[in-house]
Amino acid sequence: MDPLKTPWTRRRFIQNLSAAGAALALSGPASAWATGEKPRLKVRGYAAFDPSGKLRPWEFERRPVGDHDVLIEIRYASICHSDIHQLRGDWGPQRYPQVPGHEIAGVVTAVGKAVTRFKVGDRAGVGCMVDSCMTCERCTHGEEHHCERGETQWTYGYPSAAEPTRITQGGYSTHIVVRDHFAIHIPEHIALQDAAPLLCAGITTYSPLMRAQLDIGARVGVAGIGGLGHMAVKLAVARGAEVYAFTTSPSKVKDLLGFGVKEAVVVDDVAKLRPYRGKLDYMLSTIPAPFDVAAYAATLRPHGRFTQVGMPPAQELKISAIGLAAAQVEFNASLIGGIPETQEVVHYCADNGIKPQIELIRANQINEAWEKVLHKQARYRYVIDAATF
Amino acid sequence: MDPLKTPWTRRRFIQNLSAAGAALALSGPASAWATGEKPRLKVRGYAAFDPSGKLRPWEFERRPVGDHDVLIEIRYASICHSDIHQLRGDWGPQRYPQVPGHEIAGVVTAVGKAVTRFKVGDRAGVGCMVDSCMTCERCTHGEEHHCERGETQWTYGYPSAAEPTRITQGGYSTHIVVRDHFAIHIPEHIALQDAAPLLCAGITTYSPLMRAQLDIGARVGVAGIGGLGHMAVKLAVARGAEVYAFTTSPSKVKDLLGFGVKEAVVVDDVAKLRPYRGKLDYMLSTIPAPFDVAAYAATLRPHGRFTQVGMPPAQELKISAIGLAAAQVEFNASLIGGIPETQEVVHYCADNGIKPQIELIRANQINEAWEKVLHKQARYRYVIDAATF
Repeated sequence: MDPLKTPWTRRRFIQNLSAAGAALALSGPASAWATGEKPRLKVRGYAAFDPSGKLRPWEFERRPVGDHDVLIEIRYASICHSDIHQLRGDWGPQRYPQVPGHEIAGVVTAVGKAVTRFKVGDRAGVGCMVDSCMTCERCTHGEEHHCERGETQWTYGYPSAAEPTRITQGGYSTHIVVRDHFAIHIPEHIALQDAAPLLCAGITTYSPLMRAQLDIGARVGVAGIGGLGHMAVKLAVARGAEVYAFTTSPSKVKDLLGFGVKEAVVVDDVAKLRPYRGKLDYMLSTIPAPFDVAAYAATLRPHGRFTQVGMPPAQELKISAIGLAAAQVEFNASLIGGIPETQEVVHYCADNGIKPQIELIRANQINEAWEKVLHKQARYRYVIDAATF
Repeated sequence: MDPLKTPWTRRRFIQNLSAAGAALALSGPASAWATGEKPRLKVRGYAAFDPSGKLRPWEFERRPVGDHDVLIEIRYASICHSDIHQLRGDWGPQRYPQVPGHEIAGVVTAVGKAVTRFKVGDRAGVGCMVDSCMTCERCTHGEEHHCERGETQWTYGYPSAAEPTRITQGGYSTHIVVRDHFAIHIPEHIALQDAAPLLCAGITTYSPLMRAQLDIGARVGVAGIGGLGHMAVKLAVARGAEVYAFTTSPSKVKDLLGFGVKEAVVVDDVAKLRPYRGKLDYMLSTIPAPFDVAAYAATLRPHGRFTQVGMPPAQELKISAIGLAAAQVEFNASLIGGIPETQEVVHYCADNGIKPQIELIRANQINEAWEKVLHKQARYRYVIDAATF
């Protein structure tokens, strides 16, 4: 029985998966899996169909589970500002329909025959990438997101001959098939809904914070307090930093103090940065829009470091060269982090009780949630219950 | 006799200076200096009178020689691209008339009574700054260009109550009065015309190269081969680096090979940078115009450093955040260097026979030379013979 041809209910879908033996919803007969004919997987999700970025339900196929793949039944997928930028074409033209989502947590329901790192029933997550060449210097040293061959495969919207839709499709979906190396173990002592945002917001802020090699008591600025920024604050506080949070939203101040910042500064004008001139050791900006980089850089001590992780439209920033020179700051930008480090941040957060502040939503609330993200109304990460796809 | 009221000749002017006892051309009676009434100094120079940036002869007054000042009779002043940017208002509105020039070499012809570092007859230079608070943490640690009180006084166009014209006036002039701390000793074993360009082009490239702490054999890129760039090449070669020069001018390739570069790359298209992807340890860009920063950054190895010293119009650069993230490069910008380090580069070049490649011109050739600088025709620094002002 093909579950896609019957009315959707979560219960019925799971029943069908169970009936497939290896917990697969097969497009062919259930026995195909066992006989080695690897069938495509029919799944449900929410996709955008054009650059308006309006999402609606979509049924689509994923590639068969290969020898090195795991199939994850998604339980939660959270919403990243990047989903919106990409699906609306802010970063370049897109192929549609496209299912966004790269903060994914669920349970393994099938494994390919060469998979040793996961077994059925394991809790697992997927972040921003799902494959790479796996043989180059960078891939073999935990920087799969910097694959020298340029073969890093991003979780959604990336060309993929293996996928029936010819592009990778993301986590706003019931299931995902991913090469085992790119799945992350989620330990039992963190809830899956709390783990999902770690797969992008967590690693994207953790990675540069770790590279900054901060001493206990180091003064760390975090600019832009959304999904990424609030994780940066929590991670930096946990690492013993004295954290200065810079936000444009006065309503976030109380939350920030609750997260343990030393000061929460409402930057309704860059002049508000002046009292912090030369004060900070390190700055992490998650601001996903054009902003006055040099004004923020001026809050750093000479030779301090400044990392940009927010990606503005066109992924481009105007920077005052004279301002940067005056601040004597090292400016860099950072993408996510590699797979070993992603595993590390999940363990670190689980072990230290660091959780994102989330709001659970149903699939039919995604469009509304996107608007709230754009209007800085998220507090702080929307997590979609995948049972509602 | 007031030399400014007689027809100009270099000889006559010097005669008048000599006649003034302390080698001063005084606006009052020659004896005023001796009696402690410190007279203003009448001098000649070339000034711009509006944002067209057209220069013509101008007679103006400089402040009296104070207790901590030295008077330098300028012998040579060289042309920096910054002169053009500033006088044309590219970096903001200017006050006119304004005399540019911050690469100045000459001979001390008078010293204030508190001056101990210089005596009459010493060879001396002046660079981009002529004063600062001299008491803050930065000023007392050799970074007068980063005065914490913001009191760094730039050599021309900077408000100055002490100057009769109410702004500082630069080196395209017969004389300059400068606080002794901001004068640089020029040793006998370097010609004054070769020393002048070191006061900006030399220190501006030397300072970041030294901070980069390059190992012998380090692969250093220099992007933009003009006055600054060709000095960067010579300095990096002298420090034992393997230098890759990136220029848009095919006609500079032969010169660059003569300067000792490993490769001279003509970048008529950023695609020409691709073969150098991930190859370099350090990049210094002197490009004074908008350019594709991320494309150049991609020539660096992961975690390599990139310093921008060229200042484009509006002193602003558009930078691809995603490109910078992909390159994993530390980007910074640098102004000049402090006074001790400026003294260091002058000694370093004198001791090691490092000379800029210069073309001597007369004052009435300045406007034409500026055009050539703008059209990348300079080879590589125009030096004005101050006897022709």
